[in-house]
Amino acid sequence: MRVDVLTLFPEMFDGVFHSSILGKAQEKGIVSLKAINFRDYAGNKHGTVDDTPYGGGGGMVLKPEPIFRAVEDLLGDDEASSSVPGGHKPRIILMCPQGETFTQHKAEELAREEHLIFICGHYEGYDERIREHLVTDELSIGDYVLTGGEIPAMVVIDSITRLLPGVLGNEMSAVTDSFSTGLLEYPHYTRPVEFRGWKVPDILLSGHHANVATWRRKEAFRRTLLRRPDLLDVVELSPRDLKLLHEVKAELVD
Amino acid sequence: MRVDVLTLFPEMFDGVFHSSILGKAQEKGIVSLKAINFRDYAGNKHGTVDDTPYGGGGGMVLKPEPIFRAVEDLLGDDEASSSVPGGHKPRIILMCPQGETFTQHKAEELAREEHLIFICGHYEGYDERIREHLVTDELSIGDYVLTGGEIPAMVVIDSITRLLPGVLGNEMSAVTDSFSTGLLEYPHYTRPVEFRGWKVPDILLSGHHANVATWRRKEAFRRTLLRRPDLLDVVELSPRDLKLLHEVKAELVD
Repeated sequence: MRVDVLTLFPEMFDGVFHSSILGKAQEKGIVSLKAINFRDYAGNKHGTVDDTPYGGGGGMVLKPEPIFRAVEDLLGDDEASSSVPGGHKPRIILMCPQGETFTQHKAEELAREEHLIFICGHYEGYDERIREHLVTDELSIGDYVLTGGEIPAMVVIDSITRLLPGVLGNEMSAVTDSFSTGLLEYPHYTRPVEFRGWKVPDILLSGHHANVATWRRKEAFRRTLLRRPDLLDVVELSPRDLKLLHEVKAELVD
Repeated sequence: MRVDVLTLFPEMFDGVFHSSILGKAQEKGIVSLKAINFRDYAGNKHGTVDDTPYGGGGGMVLKPEPIFRAVEDLLGDDEASSSVPGGHKPRIILMCPQGETFTQHKAEELAREEHLIFICGHYEGYDERIREHLVTDELSIGDYVLTGGEIPAMVVIDSITRLLPGVLGNEMSAVTDSFSTGLLEYPHYTRPVEFRGWKVPDILLSGHHANVATWRRKEAFRRTLLRRPDLLDVVELSPRDLKLLHEVKAELVD
């Protein structure tokens, strides 16, 4: 997979693209991550990429030309390297608060693509023609205001890259599955068995695997009920799960 | 404000902490941002910070001792530097999928604190005693799986820092207010007036300020209705707004 990020602050990506999982995924050749300064496509000697809004008001608006040119330059690479001209259709993703809220489902969808191009604005608005005539997806990572699209693009790229075959070892995938099972995770404990007087629950030391499994499932239900009951509306439950969920609800009422 | 991040990958923060708004906020002395490797608090020569889970199963679990020690070391700084011993009560924030979903309201709450400590795990689970006896807040930035808490911590830190007095100039705050007004933003346009045949709407060129304001308000309603109707449930509307919203709904039905 190839991922290009258009930004005015490519240096923001240095630490994230070269550390940990993203760094290793690139070393293994599974993904190629590049941050490109679209000021290089300004087409004027001052490198101007924004201008005041028509109709007045505060703030600056990113001009359409530099972003169209930068994307088209990246699409040109695709056509040149493809044996089937026009065979590649990259997704062009605008990071913005007005976008569709990003979810694990969307991460899985994007992880099947060959080439993704992210456009990150930075406290400016985008000229509407970028939205209407260039991008294929608009994404928001949540209902909060950030200074730019760069950190949100890192969020999306991280969540997609970890889904690519060969990126995660088994030891990592096991623990991080909160939103794939549809429940919040049960509590984890490791050594020491007693820390400052706080002990690991006896059941986890019992060696009785079936009881441990039941305890964990019930704790996952308990935490989900207490913190995110909305998640239970969409998860599919077996008859045994329904019985455990019923028990947990009864215990919480007591 | 002082922000400390406990992580096994402090180098991930280099680009983000030193660029753009966060870099400038530090130069101005408004905020101090530090990423600290809690492996330095492992207390053994191998630097071991995780171990297998009690009760079996895959994955590794972060041990309590290194994280308790690292936090207590940071709290010690507070007491030493405070004229009122114990006067500082930093918020200790665990980034995890089980946490409360981060919102703009939470950003505003945290922006009033003097000292924040973030704990970022990285594909391991946390020993439950960290959650129960050390942290004050658990935060999730959205319903998707990431490889660690580092990028989520950047999200929260960015959203908080931009709220601190003196960080943003007026020119920036104007455009980025999607979630503070409760509506999605209206479309923005800048030069050129015609780009590849796509024109700026006439009304924005009319110079008639009242008409421009009405058009923008209606477009904000239209976009919010089409993309995020849930936001309209919580926003307070004036009688004039209600009339405009009604008109937009009627236009959408046609």
